[in-house]
Amino acid sequence: MFSEEKVTATYWVETPHSLHTAAAVMAAEQSTGTFVAVPGETDEVKRRSAANIESITPLEIVRTPSLPGSRPPHNHDGSYYRGEVVLSFPYHNMGPSIPNLLATVAGNLFELRELSGLRLIDLELPPSFSSKYKGPKFGTAGTRDLVGVHGRPIIGTIIKPSIGLTIDELRPLVRTLALSGLDFIKDDELNANPLFVPFEQKVKAVMEEIERAADATGKKVMYAFNITGDIDELRRNHDWVKQSGGTCVMVSINSIGFSGLAELNRYSELPIHGHRNGFGYWTRYPALGMAFAPYQKLCRLAGADHLHVNALNGKFYESNESVIRSVQALQAPLLGGYDAMPVLSSGQSAATAAETFRLLRTCDLMNIAGGGIMAHPDGVEAGVASMLEAWEAAVQGIPVDEYARSRPALRRALEAFGEKGA
Amino acid sequence: MFSEEKVTATYWVETPHSLHTAAAVMAAEQSTGTFVAVPGETDEVKRRSAANIESITPLEIVRTPSLPGSRPPHNHDGSYYRGEVVLSFPYHNMGPSIPNLLATVAGNLFELRELSGLRLIDLELPPSFSSKYKGPKFGTAGTRDLVGVHGRPIIGTIIKPSIGLTIDELRPLVRTLALSGLDFIKDDELNANPLFVPFEQKVKAVMEEIERAADATGKKVMYAFNITGDIDELRRNHDWVKQSGGTCVMVSINSIGFSGLAELNRYSELPIHGHRNGFGYWTRYPALGMAFAPYQKLCRLAGADHLHVNALNGKFYESNESVIRSVQALQAPLLGGYDAMPVLSSGQSAATAAETFRLLRTCDLMNIAGGGIMAHPDGVEAGVASMLEAWEAAVQGIPVDEYARSRPALRRALEAFGEKGA
Repeated sequence: MFSEEKVTATYWVETPHSLHTAAAVMAAEQSTGTFVAVPGETDEVKRRSAANIESITPLEIVRTPSLPGSRPPHNHDGSYYRGEVVLSFPYHNMGPSIPNLLATVAGNLFELRELSGLRLIDLELPPSFSSKYKGPKFGTAGTRDLVGVHGRPIIGTIIKPSIGLTIDELRPLVRTLALSGLDFIKDDELNANPLFVPFEQKVKAVMEEIERAADATGKKVMYAFNITGDIDELRRNHDWVKQSGGTCVMVSINSIGFSGLAELNRYSELPIHGHRNGFGYWTRYPALGMAFAPYQKLCRLAGADHLHVNALNGKFYESNESVIRSVQALQAPLLGGYDAMPVLSSGQSAATAAETFRLLRTCDLMNIAGGGIMAHPDGVEAGVASMLEAWEAAVQGIPVDEYARSRPALRRALEAFGEKGA
Repeated sequence: MFSEEKVTATYWVETPHSLHTAAAVMAAEQSTGTFVAVPGETDEVKRRSAANIESITPLEIVRTPSLPGSRPPHNHDGSYYRGEVVLSFPYHNMGPSIPNLLATVAGNLFELRELSGLRLIDLELPPSFSSKYKGPKFGTAGTRDLVGVHGRPIIGTIIKPSIGLTIDELRPLVRTLALSGLDFIKDDELNANPLFVPFEQKVKAVMEEIERAADATGKKVMYAFNITGDIDELRRNHDWVKQSGGTCVMVSINSIGFSGLAELNRYSELPIHGHRNGFGYWTRYPALGMAFAPYQKLCRLAGADHLHVNALNGKFYESNESVIRSVQALQAPLLGGYDAMPVLSSGQSAATAAETFRLLRTCDLMNIAGGGIMAHPDGVEAGVASMLEAWEAAVQGIPVDEYARSRPALRRALEAFGEKGA
């Protein structure tokens, strides 16, 4: 009933007040307080449920607020104080519930006028959260076993064009990819259930091609079917993929919410490929929202077996340093487990493999190239070969240009994508 | 199978490129294109599924990018171009699916390095969305009927302290409130299912107090039980509230996602009180995320009967102008209906009623005062009386100070909250 366990949230804060005032307002607003004292907020209630300021670490002082709408104190000298504030919340206030955790650590407090910047940068959860959330059922080891790939990243592609192919146009593409020796194929996040591609027929067609190719090559490619949809559709589509012989489902996590993901995880029998599209609105402005460190913990807790992290030298705004931090955060144990695979995707090709391995020093990755495979000048098979060869070179420590001399697919990929990739 | 219907999304954009380049990248990235041309992107595929640039309206030019990570062109002169870009997407790309709509209009594009600012400011949905999403089952009229209040706002309060009361402490508070003539009570968003307040026992205790008060007064107060939780808990808790005689459930929309809300709406038999806590991370920085205009459409589509809009002269950062726009957006018909009640809450008291009515000119509101009722110097009954009296004065056009002369509850409220409220 009552618990000694705590949830600990670390915030980057900016405020025209003192950091202590800001931290006190945050703690009160997100637990027992409101804008005036109320009679029922007794010492007993506070002891039971108040948030606690664990630490305050001052950072720089700036002259311009990062967010609009903050209200400075009357004697304000124009300074905005930045710092890291660590708050703890009694676990028994919310219990093992991601939705209620969010209302506590990432709810109304972004709107406080005492703050001119607020970002949740880390989150420590008590072990009791694992009583409700069992986490990924496959993770790295389970996915590797299903794909049959060890000692190197799982190499994959995205069906391109992202959206617009009919089933008749999709079939030959899947066939070619499945015969090429590729490990993994995924739908684009834009392509889940278009009206002109009935989901059940698509899964049937794709799996026919995959099984036929597997009969020929001995290798069954993993296809992540995008089942993103409303709650009832998740179940129906997961079950259809499973009974059709598919080995992976994909969801846009921000489209279905952490609770949609947790619901899928409850009954899923396949690895869940988690796409983070939309995470930019949460994270791109450094003075607002949520960093990847807490976000990925919630994704793993809710059951993502694979999680997108953008990519090194990718096509998006994110710096390589930030992507490296994301991969490291994702590979650190969470409550002793919750292992999930980082998915490097966006602007990837054979030209990006060497630097990816040099900077990350791990092969426990999925490396997904859409255009980098589909648009290889010698075709899709050459695109796949170039990715595999580029990773062979990287893992063996052989300079990619040297390795490419006797390998035309790799050489042509470097010529085609070298500048775009780097 | 194929449809002529379109989804139209309006964005505020900032870019170091030309607005046309930015719009073209957005349209390509979110439909048939990727970072290189791929063989399958035929004219036929484009005709079927490409997004279209409907209009580009230039705004000002600035010298500093609003978001980090944009990559200017080689010949960049230091200008960042702002403008409104309207894109349309073929409806058949996603069908009637809020999750897949989100991946399309609010997915990866926030991360594009061609942009230094991106905000979704409006969204027009085709009528076919209503084939899947039936919307609020109660709305304004249904809620008014259940509460028995017409011709003035529904006046409510929030159980305070927000979190920490045991059932034994909650009972007398509910009793007092229910006997006071109040229309509506809600749980705080922090208080859904704490370990020390088993949900079923709480509902039972609260409803006992409410029914007993209703027997005495003839008026049954509506209590919005916060059922926020994972998908399985939503159903169980909704059903328990319903069978216990409760008349409203509340959810934190961003905690359960639009698809969690839509799932609840599918089977709910009670009005759904939608709390928007956390919306600040989506909206507070003007150059990122989503404005309230599209957000509230998604909430209504997914089935919110009531929706929080902050409040005039509230305790949060938002300007009155912005709150007024929110209320007006929420009261404009969506696809010919989807009527939902705006909920004005945060820092409210008898002192805020007059200006609220002066600025909004509507009574189709819920006006919720937590501290403004609970912390009234003469107690909760006086707090309730002061709110009702303040609205009587406002609707009749009588200056509140004049009206307060013969009404001590109102007078004392103005003394206590006048400065804080205004």
